[in-house]
Amino acid sequence: MDINQIEPIARLINEFSKLPSVGKKTAERYAYHIIRASDEGAKNFADAIMNVKAKIKFCEVCGNYTETSPCRVCRERSSKTICVVKEPKDAMAIERTSSFKGAYHILHGTINPLAGVGPNDIRLKELLSRVAENGTEEVIIATNPDVEGEATAMYIAKLLKPLGVKVSRIAQGISMGSELEYADEVTLSRALSDRKEM
Amino acid sequence: MDINQIEPIARLINEFSKLPSVGKKTAERYAYHIIRASDEGAKNFADAIMNVKAKIKFCEVCGNYTETSPCRVCRERSSKTICVVKEPKDAMAIERTSSFKGAYHILHGTINPLAGVGPNDIRLKELLSRVAENGTEEVIIATNPDVEGEATAMYIAKLLKPLGVKVSRIAQGISMGSELEYADEVTLSRALSDRKEM
Repeated sequence: MDINQIEPIARLINEFSKLPSVGKKTAERYAYHIIRASDEGAKNFADAIMNVKAKIKFCEVCGNYTETSPCRVCRERSSKTICVVKEPKDAMAIERTSSFKGAYHILHGTINPLAGVGPNDIRLKELLSRVAENGTEEVIIATNPDVEGEATAMYIAKLLKPLGVKVSRIAQGISMGSELEYADEVTLSRALSDRKEM
Repeated sequence: MDINQIEPIARLINEFSKLPSVGKKTAERYAYHIIRASDEGAKNFADAIMNVKAKIKFCEVCGNYTETSPCRVCRERSSKTICVVKEPKDAMAIERTSSFKGAYHILHGTINPLAGVGPNDIRLKELLSRVAENGTEEVIIATNPDVEGEATAMYIAKLLKPLGVKVSRIAQGISMGSELEYADEVTLSRALSDRKEM
């Protein structure tokens, strides 16, 4: 007689196990936490979930999450420089550096033919018309330095160049504070070939 | 401009970060998962939380989680042997061994004076009357082998012995399949002193 098979508990464990990298054991611990929580605590949790779905939408301009569209970044900052990223969390990572003051463009994916994701499945059309309409001067492509991210960057560069806009890619090299000894070969050879004159 | 500070997102991240051993980063990932999920998926999640709170209660006999009180174990099994554990999940761990066919008694805590948990804060009174009323023959104490679990076990043994019931404690020793070399000293010396004749 497994209390995890009592229907309401089984159902909650199942919902928790849909979260990214949550296995059965972790989902169980989360479910027990909810069972032990106060009625009010559980209600707040459930409400927060429904609330986020009701209130959060995509910014019609950049594609980031927002309560009001266009989002605050699109309203307050110029589109002279647009930084293109794969996911909202990537924009947030750049935002945390406080060293970029332009606008973002979220692709919501990268081109990945094996997974059936083509150029029309990510927000490329929106990027093209945005660049054309706003007199954008530079597009910085900040997709991940993996196969899909690199391919997507090349594809975007090819699309944008004819519009006369400057297209750049974030630098790749060894991480600050890391040790050369532990850098992988690809990163290290990239750091060598992209060396900067001092 | 941090999208994590948009109120509905911040609120959901905060709720997720209340789950056991979930930090800010993990809570963010969970929140983004919900934002990306379908409206129906999010609704199912929120419903599962509310549903578990509405339907799951404590069994009035053993204190385990159940939809109907008394729970199935208390209805179908004899109380001749009662296994005392700290939490519902401990009963479940024992249940998974399939080697115990008696009833359980969940204390919902162990005596811990430093944390202000005294004998009256755990389900001891209920255990005493249960043992007295059901002609229980043996009580197996399966609290954790830590300071609080050991102290609670001793306390319960002292309470029950005058009732003429047999009180036992689960064996402590080296784990099956483990290597002596890696066993800690306390466990190993306990395994030595509790040695069994072959």
